[in-house]
Amino acid sequence: MTTYNATIALDAMGGDHGVSVVVPAAVGICRENPRVRLILVGDEAAIDAELASAGAQRSEQLVVRHASQTVAMDESPSQALRLKKDSSMRVSINLVKENEADASVSAGNTGALMATARYVLKTLPGIDRPAIITTIPSIGGYTRMLDLGANVDCSAEHLFQFAVMGSVLAEALDGIEQPRVGLLNIGEEDIKGNDQVKQAARILSTQDGLNYIGYVEADGIYSDDVDVVVCDGFVGNVALKSAEGVASIISHYMREEFRRNLFTKLAGLIAMPVIRRFRSRIDPRRYNGASLLGLRGIVLKSHGSADVYAFQRAIKTAVLEAEKAVPALIDRRLDEMLSERPDK
Amino acid sequence: MTTYNATIALDAMGGDHGVSVVVPAAVGICRENPRVRLILVGDEAAIDAELASAGAQRSEQLVVRHASQTVAMDESPSQALRLKKDSSMRVSINLVKENEADASVSAGNTGALMATARYVLKTLPGIDRPAIITTIPSIGGYTRMLDLGANVDCSAEHLFQFAVMGSVLAEALDGIEQPRVGLLNIGEEDIKGNDQVKQAARILSTQDGLNYIGYVEADGIYSDDVDVVVCDGFVGNVALKSAEGVASIISHYMREEFRRNLFTKLAGLIAMPVIRRFRSRIDPRRYNGASLLGLRGIVLKSHGSADVYAFQRAIKTAVLEAEKAVPALIDRRLDEMLSERPDK
Repeated sequence: MTTYNATIALDAMGGDHGVSVVVPAAVGICRENPRVRLILVGDEAAIDAELASAGAQRSEQLVVRHASQTVAMDESPSQALRLKKDSSMRVSINLVKENEADASVSAGNTGALMATARYVLKTLPGIDRPAIITTIPSIGGYTRMLDLGANVDCSAEHLFQFAVMGSVLAEALDGIEQPRVGLLNIGEEDIKGNDQVKQAARILSTQDGLNYIGYVEADGIYSDDVDVVVCDGFVGNVALKSAEGVASIISHYMREEFRRNLFTKLAGLIAMPVIRRFRSRIDPRRYNGASLLGLRGIVLKSHGSADVYAFQRAIKTAVLEAEKAVPALIDRRLDEMLSERPDK
Repeated sequence: MTTYNATIALDAMGGDHGVSVVVPAAVGICRENPRVRLILVGDEAAIDAELASAGAQRSEQLVVRHASQTVAMDESPSQALRLKKDSSMRVSINLVKENEADASVSAGNTGALMATARYVLKTLPGIDRPAIITTIPSIGGYTRMLDLGANVDCSAEHLFQFAVMGSVLAEALDGIEQPRVGLLNIGEEDIKGNDQVKQAARILSTQDGLNYIGYVEADGIYSDDVDVVVCDGFVGNVALKSAEGVASIISHYMREEFRRNLFTKLAGLIAMPVIRRFRSRIDPRRYNGASLLGLRGIVLKSHGSADVYAFQRAIKTAVLEAEKAVPALIDRRLDEMLSERPDK
């Protein structure tokens, strides 16, 4: 019997494309990495059909687990919790709970995923609320930012917990020794910001176990000055979506200008290889896979519209988190830090 | 004696460049538009020297008013208020208060400008706090967004006031008949968002005098779906700065790719006219000049690093607001709307 580095449960029905993306993504990962085992969770018939058309079949490495229900993309979290106990999303997370999988990945509805993960797995001791963290391209490489929408109102204490979790993740996944942690604010001066942010700054600046560098403005997210940016979910979501909006009008304008006339079209043709390289650097698919942090288990959220390449990126992050045992690392670090807190 | 459409007081000492930007900008505007009168406020000697080197002089149209002090870019608002009673910033706003000018423009420190404007001019009846509104490029043209940092914690009532002010401004300056007003939120569904936003949505949806279209996500700011986006100052500042950060890494990456080797440099040379046109469309200088709304007088904030072209854009917006008498329009509209409010 082969031993695997990690077993990942995949919600095969989640996202805009369901099995037609998740199954080929899984097949590709298994071929690429024989040390990773995947469990495809969802409608058996649909999964088997998709496996067949990908020229693959069930195996010890690529397991299928039937689930009779699917959580819709617009379903309310409470409805999903109450009525969808055999959904592909819920069963995937159950597998993590029961130690049959080391992590789960879903492209399904974020609210339902968060509610289900929290209900099934529970939060780590010392964590009030799980947070969503993602990777954002920056001048130097990338920055990690949390929270991204799970928590719209956050106290200073929540922001402190996010800072610890983000720091542990950056250390584990990126190999950065003392990740630079910044608090998102609307100015770098001490007097700026709302009460929660100011109070979180006071807590963070007394923490020896954390490389807290102070306030970061939203343009600083994309700079090379910070590794982890901490904010409440409302603000984080706005920062991220605003960035997406700008990137999309920039590419819209660029397309318009290159299509203006024969000369510009020709110039576009010549510049195409360069523009393609440039585009690939800010390709959001490269950064697909947001982690739900603070749970007693690993859960990743893929973008709903992810394609095969993007979904595979999320699986790879899940594998890495499983190999590093991120929840245990967070648990230990939080424990150390809370015991050092003069105010606790 | 010439009659002028508008007289604008300019804080000649404000911003990173002071007189060396403000004076040539003023000279240019006067030459271009004989119906605009400008008052340059600040250190007389410095202004006169700058006028001379621009080949201009004081005139009926281009007046100099001495002010003995300057507010520093990092000075605290309270210090500026207490100790800088003869600053170029304060004297410019005094001129508006005393009806010697129809509007004032400053590239000085935002906090000090807001505090001074509020102290000298006072807010309009029904307005608790002034807000900062700016113009953001969008697919269809541009969107206006407020607040941008003046108010970090906002109640639903404040957001309502911002919505009315933004709507009036878009109607007056852009000639849009029923500007589409959206509330910035982290989802378009009713259940999303924090309490203030949800409550503001309830107030706005009962208002006949306002074309409230519901929630807008931050990527929607740059779409063609909305004319005015309303949010608290923390969130607005983050949305704007995040957009600036992305635009700047995109241009950084693009430069890097075009400089990679001889072929890419050649391609860049050929594509240059197209790229230049494209860049000019997202040039932030075109959108320079944020209005402080809700005061009994017109005050515009120019970016601190504005050059002559950018500062002139801010002056032109001030002229337009003066011609349309924006504060009186806001006052009237708010009065009508508050009298219609079932909850008031």
